Amino acid sequence: MPYFDAASSLPPHPVATQALLAALDDGWADPSRPHREGRKARLLLDAAREAAADAVGCRPDELTFTSSGTRALHTGVAGALAGRARAGRELLVSAVEHSAVLHAAEAHRAAGGGVTEIGVDREGRVAPEAVAAALRAASRGPALVCVQSANHEVGTRQPVAEIAEVCAAAGVPLLVDAAQSLPWGRVEGGWSLLAGSAHKWGGPAGVGLLVVRKGTRFAPVGPTDERESGRAPGFEDIPAIVAAAASLRAVRQDAAAEAARLAGLVDRIRERVPALVPDVEVVGAAEERLPGIVTFSCLYVDGEALLHALDREGFAVSSGSSCTSSTLTPSHVLRAMGVLSEGNVRVSLPPGTAEQDVERFLAVLPGAVAGVREQLAPPVPVTVDAGEPDGGHGALTVDALGRRCPVPVIELSRVIGRVPVGGVVTVLADDAAARLDIPAWCDMRGQEYLGEAPHGAGPGTAYRVRRVV
Amino acid sequence: MPYFDAASSLPPHPVATQALLAALDDGWADPSRPHREGRKARLLLDAAREAAADAVGCRPDELTFTSSGTRALHTGVAGALAGRARAGRELLVSAVEHSAVLHAAEAHRAAGGGVTEIGVDREGRVAPEAVAAALRAASRGPALVCVQSANHEVGTRQPVAEIAEVCAAAGVPLLVDAAQSLPWGRVEGGWSLLAGSAHKWGGPAGVGLLVVRKGTRFAPVGPTDERESGRAPGFEDIPAIVAAAASLRAVRQDAAAEAARLAGLVDRIRERVPALVPDVEVVGAAEERLPGIVTFSCLYVDGEALLHALDREGFAVSSGSSCTSSTLTPSHVLRAMGVLSEGNVRVSLPPGTAEQDVERFLAVLPGAVAGVREQLAPPVPVTVDAGEPDGGHGALTVDALGRRCPVPVIELSRVIGRVPVGGVVTVLADDAAARLDIPAWCDMRGQEYLGEAPHGAGPGTAYRVRRVV
Repeated sequence: MPYFDAASSLPPHPVATQALLAALDDGWADPSRPHREGRKARLLLDAAREAAADAVGCRPDELTFTSSGTRALHTGVAGALAGRARAGRELLVSAVEHSAVLHAAEAHRAAGGGVTEIGVDREGRVAPEAVAAALRAASRGPALVCVQSANHEVGTRQPVAEIAEVCAAAGVPLLVDAAQSLPWGRVEGGWSLLAGSAHKWGGPAGVGLLVVRKGTRFAPVGPTDERESGRAPGFEDIPAIVAAAASLRAVRQDAAAEAARLAGLVDRIRERVPALVPDVEVVGAAEERLPGIVTFSCLYVDGEALLHALDREGFAVSSGSSCTSSTLTPSHVLRAMGVLSEGNVRVSLPPGTAEQDVERFLAVLPGAVAGVREQLAPPVPVTVDAGEPDGGHGALTVDALGRRCPVPVIELSRVIGRVPVGGVVTVLADDAAARLDIPAWCDMRGQEYLGEAPHGAGPGTAYRVRRVV
Repeated sequence: MPYFDAASSLPPHPVATQALLAALDDGWADPSRPHREGRKARLLLDAAREAAADAVGCRPDELTFTSSGTRALHTGVAGALAGRARAGRELLVSAVEHSAVLHAAEAHRAAGGGVTEIGVDREGRVAPEAVAAALRAASRGPALVCVQSANHEVGTRQPVAEIAEVCAAAGVPLLVDAAQSLPWGRVEGGWSLLAGSAHKWGGPAGVGLLVVRKGTRFAPVGPTDERESGRAPGFEDIPAIVAAAASLRAVRQDAAAEAARLAGLVDRIRERVPALVPDVEVVGAAEERLPGIVTFSCLYVDGEALLHALDREGFAVSSGSSCTSSTLTPSHVLRAMGVLSEGNVRVSLPPGTAEQDVERFLAVLPGAVAGVREQLAPPVPVTVDAGEPDGGHGALTVDALGRRCPVPVIELSRVIGRVPVGGVVTVLADDAAARLDIPAWCDMRGQEYLGEAPHGAGPGTAYRVRRVV
């Protein structure tokens, strides 16, 4: 059963399981106790910290084990902001950060702080110049910059070392969410804080890493205790920590060779999917990218239906489409990149992925997409406008209010041929994905997107498209 | 190697290890994903929640898995306070709560809230009347009461059901830290919130429980996400959660029989230690107590030296003496109870403790205590007061400034015979334990404790004792 959702979570690495089992015997006692069992636990904890610090490229006393990568990010953001409270109150985050960073930013805003979102290009990349501009513009004094090392949805690597230089020049610390890239290598450059998550490299889910470089101002927020330098309260889960450190070391041993192999498989998917499936957009950076992630979006496809079709074929993938999410909004990453979100599929290959599984995926994908496209929703009411408000050309209004993606785009594509070239189709829609997908459809189809307007006094938005071809 | 520090942490229960291993195969994926691996993980998580809720005696949707018992307490206290922010700002905690609750209280105070500490009797018990009085007196409006189900240092059980009635009558929620008692059974009574910690029953250290009864106002504080009802952000460690739930169910099956057996062993220790070791005070409730915990304090003994002596004999125990703690203050529990802290030993027997190990402990303890007593610190300067300020009786001052416990009490006992009956000994000391131990010594020895006063302009405190016998 090929599992292609590695960016979400990996099965335990064999070394993690072995280390966990071994450490269950010696790592269960309280490492702060002076008795023999406590000392054994302490030795394991210290050794795990040294191994993890070596893998990260930091001093052991800079590294704290947290209970998850999310917790590492929440603690890191809050602690760095509190440590810099006198210097500034503005938190700068890239628009494509993991939701854990965005949630921490929301909490900062709710507590009266300021948050600036730094935009990305169409490949999802944060430009160092954009960081520099945001630092200059930070009205409340820049306190902290958060940029991930690589994106979890589209695989784009960020220019962390250059961004760190920009931050250093401004005297502002940089926190790097390294969750996706840490299995593949150290994060180079002069960052100040770094977070990682063990289950992204085959370690246990209950272990994260928070690194705070010496000299970085940091003030823990909320209740603390004497454990983990006062940065992660609560009894340490040492067997899980040992498993996390051991498996990080193990995956790093094969990282270079496996990265090259997976990148080759991903290149194959990137090249062949557009040829195999009509109306597909491959998104994310073509060059500076993680080895195992490839993301594409398919026009006229319901994301959830496609996931289920692929699941039935035995492939576990992920999606940033709104139709698969309880929030009803498309992935904030795809939105920030301005790319199509409908029919979105993220394929993230775990280390060891077999070539024939990728070939089989490529073999079943066209049929899965075609099958979902066949189940198109029944036509929505189409109203031909009575007047000719648009310079004498034909005009049509499609009422897709209350209809979920991909219906608005499907209906747009269905009726565009019914107006003459130069004519305008107006799509009324209240699904948030339409805002992203209608312009993306125009881009892909060579039609002209005229913009959006409120839909009179009613709900939803009117999106206007002029037929060009 | 007998391990008698069960109240600190237990070795993994065999059922926990088996369940962990089994769940590693099926529980590593993201339970919020719709693919097959995600659904398998979700099934395991749901089943674990049902099992844990059954053991606690609550509805599954009232129970959240957290990353530790400490985190459950921090989250529970903060969330309950935030949910009640309009009703009141005063947090009431018993004086013998676990440090995790006290740290949460400190954070509340630092954020501008009020904290009332509810005192205990000499056995460590919180009287329901004391809770009622504290609720009436809460100047800023009572927001939340925190009382543990049983004390972690001396084993005393609290009258939770009665306290819950008092709280309900006042319309104030009660949070129960059930970490120590949960392995032995449900917490009865009308509490509103409850916290537990899996490594206290042989589950993994990375799992805690937070139960919030329906109808309890609760507002999560800080960043949240969609996991665990918004109360525990971050990817769930499902194998650990499965192991926690399975081992709780397993220990409960033997709980009644094992509780009776351990209580018998503890009774034996409670009875025989005072006969075997001179100058010992057994502390904690004689009746309403946890099965496996017994605590006693030995006069004229350095706590750390005694722990090491027992460790060399192969016994891992714990201590609330200041001489073993990096904080240099004696246990806040012993202080609140007003009992002797020096030479303090907590014996907490794990389930399955063999009778012969207890017998061997009783056999080696007298020698261990005697050995430590022989290494008494060299005499400190003793100054015979020039005048006779105390009604014509003799007077002596012992200068123990800068000396750590148990030196002040050792020197007091050494010189008391050098003043006549009616005479006064003044002990100058700056070790915080002296405030507890000098009155406790007077109690045990039938001498009269006259009180303390600042030591002139110098450091430390002057403790005055009148010789009676």
